[in-house]
Amino acid sequence: MRIVLDAMGSDHAPEVDVEGGVRAARRFGHEIVLVGQRQAIEAELAKHDTADLPLSIVEASQVVAMDEHPSQAVRNKPDASIVVGMNQVREGHADALVSMGNSGGVLAAAVASVGRVGRIPGVHRPALSTVFPHMDGFSFLLDIGANTDCKPEWLVQFALMGAVYARNVLGIDNPRVALLSNGEEETKGNKLVQDTRELLRQLSLNLVGNVEGKDLTRGLADVIVTDGFVGNVALKTAEGVASMILALLKNEIKSRPLAMVGGLLAKPAFKAAGRRLDYREYGGAPLLGVNGVVIMGHGRSDALAVENAIGMAITAVEGNLIETIRQDIQDAMTILSKAPKSD
Amino acid sequence: MRIVLDAMGSDHAPEVDVEGGVRAARRFGHEIVLVGQRQAIEAELAKHDTADLPLSIVEASQVVAMDEHPSQAVRNKPDASIVVGMNQVREGHADALVSMGNSGGVLAAAVASVGRVGRIPGVHRPALSTVFPHMDGFSFLLDIGANTDCKPEWLVQFALMGAVYARNVLGIDNPRVALLSNGEEETKGNKLVQDTRELLRQLSLNLVGNVEGKDLTRGLADVIVTDGFVGNVALKTAEGVASMILALLKNEIKSRPLAMVGGLLAKPAFKAAGRRLDYREYGGAPLLGVNGVVIMGHGRSDALAVENAIGMAITAVEGNLIETIRQDIQDAMTILSKAPKSD
Repeated sequence: MRIVLDAMGSDHAPEVDVEGGVRAARRFGHEIVLVGQRQAIEAELAKHDTADLPLSIVEASQVVAMDEHPSQAVRNKPDASIVVGMNQVREGHADALVSMGNSGGVLAAAVASVGRVGRIPGVHRPALSTVFPHMDGFSFLLDIGANTDCKPEWLVQFALMGAVYARNVLGIDNPRVALLSNGEEETKGNKLVQDTRELLRQLSLNLVGNVEGKDLTRGLADVIVTDGFVGNVALKTAEGVASMILALLKNEIKSRPLAMVGGLLAKPAFKAAGRRLDYREYGGAPLLGVNGVVIMGHGRSDALAVENAIGMAITAVEGNLIETIRQDIQDAMTILSKAPKSD
Repeated sequence: MRIVLDAMGSDHAPEVDVEGGVRAARRFGHEIVLVGQRQAIEAELAKHDTADLPLSIVEASQVVAMDEHPSQAVRNKPDASIVVGMNQVREGHADALVSMGNSGGVLAAAVASVGRVGRIPGVHRPALSTVFPHMDGFSFLLDIGANTDCKPEWLVQFALMGAVYARNVLGIDNPRVALLSNGEEETKGNKLVQDTRELLRQLSLNLVGNVEGKDLTRGLADVIVTDGFVGNVALKTAEGVASMILALLKNEIKSRPLAMVGGLLAKPAFKAAGRRLDYREYGGAPLLGVNGVVIMGHGRSDALAVENAIGMAITAVEGNLIETIRQDIQDAMTILSKAPKSD
């Protein structure tokens, strides 16, 4: 198996990306193809003991920055690491791609520009996903930003793809699927949620109904489906609230001498709590619906996060993610096309 | 001035509601009309020194519970405290209504059922609102659940009404208005956000553009506008994340003896941080667009929150909230009706 790693992806690229790649090559034994500026990559590799490790470099002279307009950048930079990396997958030189870069850029490179691997046959739209930590583990949330205005049929496919990922990659036997809504009751939801729910009922998914925003942190479902606008707002609201609470606590503790002593004593507890909320423990999340395994991580990732993201890509390839999605989507579309229309 | 208080509203009604009413009568000197079951109210009043305070009781034999279907409950219970209270406002016996009860019930009583005060002339839809704390104060967010599928014209009115409330009640001179979106850039947003933005640009509001979910806690705008589906998801996501972080910290601190000592020392800091996040400090938020001042508080409110919510109602009446909204909506609709259509 060969896994392509976008060596120029993270905020601290190529340092942490290359280190993560080296660790993954050592841990998993599969070949890691580092794509990016050769000199910079070689300088990073020299910091590690890479003797006998299955590592290779593919040159890509350009980089898509975090603040660039994704599809424009990808169009204007045919030699960008993410484009060259995607080409490796498309042309069959590699089994999966991992990137900590601009997620819009990864999406554009996958489906909208040169080097694109395109969509899995039958898939309407690819979806960006994330893991959302809760008290006892995490839920898998999609879409978080690839598609702002969605049709019910798209959300149905997000649910199907999310369920396949949960089963084949996360190892959850019969994943509970829910729609994100403004209330748990069946009567709640906007038109999109209600129409999607009608369609999902006809399929054999383990549909547990609607969950609310507060349920994102309660572990009521394994796969939570929403459109990319709402998913993005929910995810960023969560990030904002988490940062604010920790900042507020820090401010208040700092302004009280006794509390500051307390804060120091409690520090390991803060750290442990922080780890539970830390995306890096989860590595990355897939871009689902594209015709290749694509795992994206956070720009702020460290080497451990990169290593874990590569691990997820390997599990996805071994778990036959793409072919299972293709088959499940096809089966579902057959069922829905035969069902009597309610409107 | 007479303010109607739904004495049966909160989770601990009528105890905290009546206590809040007594405190408000003492503090503000305006008459507080307690609506609910007379015996229960009188029993609570007996616990306080109410001599010479401007308090009165209006009997209402029924109560809308938190878990009832709002509009059904209001329809089936013509003698519910919220319905009887709304009637007091509609018939001109009172200037404002304050309730800590089922917000859907308050909405239904205001616009959809018996006793309704109806909408302000020209208003398409009323909106539920909330205050959203950030590091340096709070933003005002609407709609948070009254309208799931919205039209751009409705969101324009939410923006106008929110700006009037910010100006006339919260005392913010030139409130910054923003649309909640999946990115700050102008090109971001779903169709609803983009169409609303086009309309808002033609008005004289202080429009600062789009804000993201993470900006809810950054104080980038005073009034943040969204549809009721997204607003509800954002608000409940924030509540869920806040609870989870505090629970995680508590768990981790408890599992470490030294951290537990630290946690005890840091307790005042935790409390102070908690207060900054506490809705009770803000009292309540209005139901905007209905033809009367209606302030709603959280079901978990205590007497201080009830007192503060009554204070907000008084400020809204003094600030001429309803008439200003009517005038601003009329002016804006005149401008928009004259503007060339872009599509």
